[in-house]
Amino acid sequence: MPRPIALGLVQMSMTSEPAENITKALAMVEDAAGKGAQIVVLPELFQSRYFCQRPDDAFAFERSESIPGPTTEKLSELARRLKIVLVGGSLFENAGGKHFNTSVVMGPDGEIIGTYRKTHIPEDALYHEQRYFAPGDTGIKVFDTPFGRIAPLICFDQWYPEAARIAALQGAELILYPTAIGAVDAAVEENITGDWEQMWRNAMLGHAACNNVYVAAVNRCGTEDHLRFWGGSFVANPSSAILARTGDEEAVLLAQCDLDKVRPLQDAWRFFENRRSDMYGALAVSE
Amino acid sequence: MPRPIALGLVQMSMTSEPAENITKALAMVEDAAGKGAQIVVLPELFQSRYFCQRPDDAFAFERSESIPGPTTEKLSELARRLKIVLVGGSLFENAGGKHFNTSVVMGPDGEIIGTYRKTHIPEDALYHEQRYFAPGDTGIKVFDTPFGRIAPLICFDQWYPEAARIAALQGAELILYPTAIGAVDAAVEENITGDWEQMWRNAMLGHAACNNVYVAAVNRCGTEDHLRFWGGSFVANPSSAILARTGDEEAVLLAQCDLDKVRPLQDAWRFFENRRSDMYGALAVSE
Repeated sequence: MPRPIALGLVQMSMTSEPAENITKALAMVEDAAGKGAQIVVLPELFQSRYFCQRPDDAFAFERSESIPGPTTEKLSELARRLKIVLVGGSLFENAGGKHFNTSVVMGPDGEIIGTYRKTHIPEDALYHEQRYFAPGDTGIKVFDTPFGRIAPLICFDQWYPEAARIAALQGAELILYPTAIGAVDAAVEENITGDWEQMWRNAMLGHAACNNVYVAAVNRCGTEDHLRFWGGSFVANPSSAILARTGDEEAVLLAQCDLDKVRPLQDAWRFFENRRSDMYGALAVSE
Repeated sequence: MPRPIALGLVQMSMTSEPAENITKALAMVEDAAGKGAQIVVLPELFQSRYFCQRPDDAFAFERSESIPGPTTEKLSELARRLKIVLVGGSLFENAGGKHFNTSVVMGPDGEIIGTYRKTHIPEDALYHEQRYFAPGDTGIKVFDTPFGRIAPLICFDQWYPEAARIAALQGAELILYPTAIGAVDAAVEENITGDWEQMWRNAMLGHAACNNVYVAAVNRCGTEDHLRFWGGSFVANPSSAILARTGDEEAVLLAQCDLDKVRPLQDAWRFFENRRSDMYGALAVSE
């Protein structure tokens, strides 16, 4: 198991043509692997425009697909050819009529190592995800890959320290967040202002700091209807320092992650040993 | 209830003479109030040097005290005279022979609004707190004061998103962290390097971002034996932007906190409504 590993993030914009998006995604993954990336991550729902802006895109449902299915076959073939771990952003999964926002992790032999269904589903103006996705039923998952133990979480999960902590307690060394988040244009913006990109980044830097794990977010970019996706993909190390970060344009971002730094730092700070799980009952109680 | 409120943080260094430390603390609280602060916060264990550097300071136990007791009487009298809410950093509490690291919140009539006993107790080189303090038995507490609903947590608690979340779920608008954290000098430093002040700050910015609450940390400063306390006290708003921050010298830091911004931001982002408490069982299970 080679450690340190090279992580590659594919920040891309999407057109309304799935075939174009897949072609571009595959090309950018290949670009990342050509630059040395061993784990490559795509954005959330990278095959299409972010259809959840509308509450009622019937066409999106028609294009939802099974896992394994035609898209995972393409991703598997690429992962096998490039000998990489490929985290397939997320797909709109149709599981026998029940729909999920699902991340697929493929290994360097092309096998599906595992899938994760997004746990936290938002429902807001321009983010009508509850109209499309059932709440994930897999629980927080970690997967052993040839390049480290990784936890694929998805977008809105990033606001939940609960999810990051559960991943870290299961031994995740690297938490990945395929994402689709952007600024709402002035026509829709409510009377609440703030630097949301900074807030979004700080939430995840907090997860890195409190768990002493690597954290990476992979956002889309470009403007789609009323949303301007801000890009800003980044990788933070286990002491929450930012190792690499993109702007708001398409980019393949590379970062070296020495996963052997995770356990010694966790052992030095002892955040896990000094948890008081007897005091956390309020976290797991339904209201 | 006046909102916005002015928050004052007292960042100070300590000598080996408790009488000097208390005199200085009271003077700096008065300074903060003179500048308009309505809630004033002192550092952790502000009456003494950070005795936990040594595992066996018997003299520290001799000076531990009951609550209410001589120190809270002084703090109460000052809070009443200045008409402020005073968060008395933390005290080394002797509760009938059982010892805690305890924060006391005093109201503008001089009454004790409540106490909180530090939940998470570290035990590390130069931070031998488990030799002195029993794990807190109060649970995470929030207190309604005339200037807002506040949660006093203490130092090592800051690495626990669990504690911040529980405070926010109870309606805390402002989470306060009296702190004693510093860099270990080269003679003791292990072979683990990082920007710990940044990691410390990022952990708490994450709490602000994920809970949409104000967060403030009040550290000590100065060098004591093998620890250089880095100061760096700060206040962050509910979107995790830093409003004010000190350097590593003694300072009274003022920040305006519009607590009426907390609920609308929480309502806009809906992090609480979209929690999946059914998925968080692993957080509350003892290992």
